[in-house]
Amino acid sequence: MNPIVFVEALQKEIQSTQYGRHPAELYDPIQYIMSLGGKRMRPLLTLMGAYLFTDEWEKAIKPAISVEVFHNFTLMHDDIMDQAPLRRGQPTVHEKWNHNIAILSGDVMLVNAYELLLDITPDKLRHVLARFNRTAAEVCEGQQLDMNFETRWDVTEAEYVEMIKLKTSVLLGYALELGGIIAGADAESTNHLREGGINIGIGFQLKDDLLDVYGDPAKFGKQVGGDIIANKKTFLLIEALEKAGGTLLDELNGWLSCREFDKAEKVRAVTEIYDKLNIRQVTEQRISDYFAKGLSNFEQVQATPERKEMLLSFTRQLIEREN
Amino acid sequence: MNPIVFVEALQKEIQSTQYGRHPAELYDPIQYIMSLGGKRMRPLLTLMGAYLFTDEWEKAIKPAISVEVFHNFTLMHDDIMDQAPLRRGQPTVHEKWNHNIAILSGDVMLVNAYELLLDITPDKLRHVLARFNRTAAEVCEGQQLDMNFETRWDVTEAEYVEMIKLKTSVLLGYALELGGIIAGADAESTNHLREGGINIGIGFQLKDDLLDVYGDPAKFGKQVGGDIIANKKTFLLIEALEKAGGTLLDELNGWLSCREFDKAEKVRAVTEIYDKLNIRQVTEQRISDYFAKGLSNFEQVQATPERKEMLLSFTRQLIEREN
Repeated sequence: MNPIVFVEALQKEIQSTQYGRHPAELYDPIQYIMSLGGKRMRPLLTLMGAYLFTDEWEKAIKPAISVEVFHNFTLMHDDIMDQAPLRRGQPTVHEKWNHNIAILSGDVMLVNAYELLLDITPDKLRHVLARFNRTAAEVCEGQQLDMNFETRWDVTEAEYVEMIKLKTSVLLGYALELGGIIAGADAESTNHLREGGINIGIGFQLKDDLLDVYGDPAKFGKQVGGDIIANKKTFLLIEALEKAGGTLLDELNGWLSCREFDKAEKVRAVTEIYDKLNIRQVTEQRISDYFAKGLSNFEQVQATPERKEMLLSFTRQLIEREN
Repeated sequence: MNPIVFVEALQKEIQSTQYGRHPAELYDPIQYIMSLGGKRMRPLLTLMGAYLFTDEWEKAIKPAISVEVFHNFTLMHDDIMDQAPLRRGQPTVHEKWNHNIAILSGDVMLVNAYELLLDITPDKLRHVLARFNRTAAEVCEGQQLDMNFETRWDVTEAEYVEMIKLKTSVLLGYALELGGIIAGADAESTNHLREGGINIGIGFQLKDDLLDVYGDPAKFGKQVGGDIIANKKTFLLIEALEKAGGTLLDELNGWLSCREFDKAEKVRAVTEIYDKLNIRQVTEQRISDYFAKGLSNFEQVQATPERKEMLLSFTRQLIEREN
């Protein structure tokens, strides 16, 4: 089985999904944000989770789209909260329409995500809904923690990892688990799928933080050092603030409080502080720990090696990515 | 059976419901808005709907709270959109906390509303969810139409009634229907409950519009004429704009476009225009038509007259209210 088959099935389903018609101001933004693209990683995980146990992976398509609709609902509302002008290079919904429309379209998207779950057979529906409710609440909790952290300078490493776990990783775990549940997998396997998705997700987010500083500029795609310039509270910065002392801490705090600076100079100087504190090695170790835990979770899933190959190969791509 | 028993059971359940704990910024606003009170009309309708068919109305308590949580979620988000400073005489969530918290707390409230529905037995869950999804989407559609109408002066009577039906009445219909479904009522009866709730709801909203102009100041509680002062597009104004011609239309448009005026004089003058156009009689007729339709729906519900008495007496109170 080639994952391209899944991607194409998902694209087709997304294009043909009707979210509602009238009034247009409510439903056009949903079509808009869903058409902006993205890697469709979450629904792909759901199909891969189902394929581990069954050839009838098509039974998981509408629930897979539900995950993608939920994800895009969170993007629509997060973009309001972050006052983001662009999403995937296009105007955000609150910019293209207005704030009120972005709030209300997002609300009805969340309802649409629940509606797409009704495709699930009645014997599994309650279980899936309980898992989805928990996950959706956790994603909101993660977003709230992220906002709380913006005004705090004493965020610990553990708090930061908990935040990214809630804000982004639990949804990856749920996406995988969902596929397993629909395919009729045993409870132990679906738990391992969820935990595996969460661990890979945390590793993925920490790698995001790492690449922003230590990525290869030729491969990274974005400007290296963007997080440093913006004082973004990443794993690296939190770790550095925890480890640094004396003049090194003064120097780091100096850069954090400095309002006018040469961007390249700040990136170079803060990276040097990170280097002196071994932040790169510490972060790489944590990333590889989470990836190893995730792969070990996947090992314990009761499916054949042939069935697992697609998920494992996809996971390896996530692990090895450099952009 | 005394409805006070239901009200007290609901209050107790609302007080003991845990929506979540951490982070506090996410969950405190839910406790706050749920504690502001209100008539608890919607969950009461759910319990009354269940009591029509069963003594085990307590099975409907958590789903009834789900309706109240959903209703308060819409209030939290509507208050942001309407920039309302007060809700039930207390600061709105976006005023007491901030906009972002009101968006995100509202989101997690909607998830909580779904979670409370999981109390329903698996054999009825799918049906209830399908009805709730449709209703929730319609409520959003109604709110969007209401916002669209703010900048339109050609809203027809039919469009206005459709808007209030979606924005407020379908939720009353769903609340009643929900009770019936949980109690195991036949499909025809639950449909009549829903339609009855919708018709009474429309009558209720039109009476709101009427009382604002023709209410007894001693009984009304609010300032009579508030809608006229604010140029609010009520059924009466839309009807007047449709019926008026010649100098009467000029006079009405004059008051609508006038930026500086004596409030009492505007109220008196616009009321006089309404009087000349027979708006009061037309509106009263429409209200009594909707109430009659609603009562006729309830007549067709397959339950004993004894069981129906509470719902009918509650409906009569709604019909006869003067504030």
